[in-house]
Amino acid sequence: MEATRRHLEAAHSVYVVCHIIPDGDAIGSLLGLGWALRQLGKRCTMACADPVPPRFDFLAGTQEVVSDPPGDEEIIVAVDSSDTERLGSLYDALVFQSRPVINIDHHVTNIRFGTVNCVQPLPSTAEIIFSLTQELGVALDKRIAAPLLTGLVADTRCFRTGNVTSQQLHTAIALMDAGASMVEITENVFSRKPVAAICLWGRALINVRTRGRIMWTEIDQDAQRECAASPDSGTGLVSFLASTQGVDIALVFRETPDGDIEVSMRAGPGWDVSGAALRLGGGGHPRAAGCTLPGDMSAARERALLEIQTVLREQAGA
Amino acid sequence: MEATRRHLEAAHSVYVVCHIIPDGDAIGSLLGLGWALRQLGKRCTMACADPVPPRFDFLAGTQEVVSDPPGDEEIIVAVDSSDTERLGSLYDALVFQSRPVINIDHHVTNIRFGTVNCVQPLPSTAEIIFSLTQELGVALDKRIAAPLLTGLVADTRCFRTGNVTSQQLHTAIALMDAGASMVEITENVFSRKPVAAICLWGRALINVRTRGRIMWTEIDQDAQRECAASPDSGTGLVSFLASTQGVDIALVFRETPDGDIEVSMRAGPGWDVSGAALRLGGGGHPRAAGCTLPGDMSAARERALLEIQTVLREQAGA
Repeated sequence: MEATRRHLEAAHSVYVVCHIIPDGDAIGSLLGLGWALRQLGKRCTMACADPVPPRFDFLAGTQEVVSDPPGDEEIIVAVDSSDTERLGSLYDALVFQSRPVINIDHHVTNIRFGTVNCVQPLPSTAEIIFSLTQELGVALDKRIAAPLLTGLVADTRCFRTGNVTSQQLHTAIALMDAGASMVEITENVFSRKPVAAICLWGRALINVRTRGRIMWTEIDQDAQRECAASPDSGTGLVSFLASTQGVDIALVFRETPDGDIEVSMRAGPGWDVSGAALRLGGGGHPRAAGCTLPGDMSAARERALLEIQTVLREQAGA
Repeated sequence: MEATRRHLEAAHSVYVVCHIIPDGDAIGSLLGLGWALRQLGKRCTMACADPVPPRFDFLAGTQEVVSDPPGDEEIIVAVDSSDTERLGSLYDALVFQSRPVINIDHHVTNIRFGTVNCVQPLPSTAEIIFSLTQELGVALDKRIAAPLLTGLVADTRCFRTGNVTSQQLHTAIALMDAGASMVEITENVFSRKPVAAICLWGRALINVRTRGRIMWTEIDQDAQRECAASPDSGTGLVSFLASTQGVDIALVFRETPDGDIEVSMRAGPGWDVSGAALRLGGGGHPRAAGCTLPGDMSAARERALLEIQTVLREQAGA
């Protein structure tokens, strides 16, 4: 954190970038850090290879997020990204080697790709940014606090994940005191489910299957087309499955437009699927991880289930 | 609150009762107040006409909750119940007229049936009990704090409802500092969904219908039988529907074993369905209310939709 603070203090211009298919913690960390640096008088570019999902439009600055690679900014800051592949088309090895890269993240599977790595296993990257703003002496306002509380709320599913302690509530209070509205955030992050999600969840739940204490469902392109689903219509589905009695690990397999299979994994208390995700070429947290496998669906499913069964065998009674 | 405190202080024996089909706030308020009064050296009976759902087994004292009517206790305290019908078979007019009845509740539709009415429009009844424990000088321990945090977390869907401010987070921190575990509570309250819920939600979501900005689904006895569903398998479903883009009010119609239709209502920001529920013989909060109508399904649906359409018309632009 100290080296990160020094780099941020010294730089006059900063390029901040978050991961592809951005979620609440990616966008929240991006905007929170961006506005904090601007408040300190720095020039700050905020970037993401993919568009900002419309449900984050209530946050100031989303329309300023660009999908351009770094320009002449002195330093690059990657937020909430466990490796450079997660930066998508905005990663260019030569450009990234030409200046300091600060890697701010909370994923245990982070590969420490930065010149400086500020990786802390907190429930959200937004909380690391919050600590940095305190270190940097930034006076929080709503533009900074609202995205940071968005990140915290999104990655803890509103304080429901196993890593939540009173520390997260204290941080949330500080951000609310600075102007962030909990209601506005939860309404936008959790309560703007597209109508397509109703259809997609219905089909996915009807087709749930179990093997022992593993529960999963498969969502092919046909189902997504028939429901007019977008990539995030299934958000929350895997957590929903994982919170079922008798289920230790839940998986959702989703066929992407290119025919790959996106695998989302969630684990109950005491289980760790981050290693399985990593071995399958992905990453994440102990209880929430994912990867992308080549199709077809049944081959991907069997490959993932084999890894998960190994996890259950090796971690049983641990 | 002052009169309530005096009655509780003076009594040597107390009968505490919560509402039928008890939810987290009913059980949490019941146990939290029960253990607090016992800590003050009082004899305390904790009662509910219906069994305590197994997902609350992690709370101390659930096995001591009885379904017996009041005995020789000096006073009766009803928690989280807007009227005496909500006490089910444990309400007996003669018995209740024979001694002071303290009515502690947070529902705006509460009909003030007590000798003393401690009704405050907080997000949960558990928070009123928390304030009472402070007034009474109770030293909180886990047995008291865990059920109270359960009530707060359950009725705010983990801080997601529109009435949440930093006050609820401060209360949560005080309860966590006293030994309540947020993770244990959220795992048990939200993450012990019966397998039947997966089946029931799938069928309910496949059958969702809309009329203008109203979304609803109907769950008949056949669906519940085929899914081996219990009365609470659909918990959360109506909130799920209400958090869909373009939906102002969501309804779930569930056929009960006697053929009545239980109607759950949820409203988006700015709408109030408590009046509609009250006019249909039920009650609740502005954004979360319900009632029970005589079957059949289509008659009940049309009757409720008519009331809801009136709400939308009268409150539009309010």
